[in-house]
Amino acid sequence: MAEENSVFIGKKGTMSYVLAVVTQVNQGAKEVNIKARGKTISKAVDVAEIVRNKFVQDLKLADINISTEEVTSAEGTPLKVSSIEIKLSK
Amino acid sequence: MAEENSVFIGKKGTMSYVLAVVTQVNQGAKEVNIKARGKTISKAVDVAEIVRNKFVQDLKLADINISTEEVTSAEGTPLKVSSIEIKLSK
Repeated sequence: MAEENSVFIGKKGTMSYVLAVVTQVNQGAKEVNIKARGKTISKAVDVAEIVRNKFVQDLKLADINISTEEVTSAEGTPLKVSSIEIKLSK
Repeated sequence: MAEENSVFIGKKGTMSYVLAVVTQVNQGAKEVNIKARGKTISKAVDVAEIVRNKFVQDLKLADINISTEEVTSAEGTPLKVSSIEIKLSK
């Protein structure tokens, strides 16, 4: 349930994710979680800032969390990556 | 005064900034602000996580803030960049 309104940041352009967040809000979501890992963390912050400043001014930064996740590399060795979760809510 | 215990993330390797934060803590700082703009935001999160998980376990994430700053490009045109400020405290 909590995962419903999540946007995971990947390799696409920043505006693709901005559009994804704005679409969820326009469909009635009161809260959207923007999640990213590793080098895409900067893009997650850009997405949150662009949505708030240009598209949905009444969205507030409800919470920001950072943590470390363990993933398995292609070679099978464990790898630690930082992650961020930015919660925007009305 | 508030700027005293700040570490600005730039182009050096992640461990340089980890060392800078750990040094400030070892010199008695009760609070360290990690600041970054644009693409170095991911590195700021890495630095905060490495310091907390590997070096100074009693440091807590006191606050995380994101915002948009306006800078002037080399050509003189205004440019908006996202920024992050991660406050670690004992």
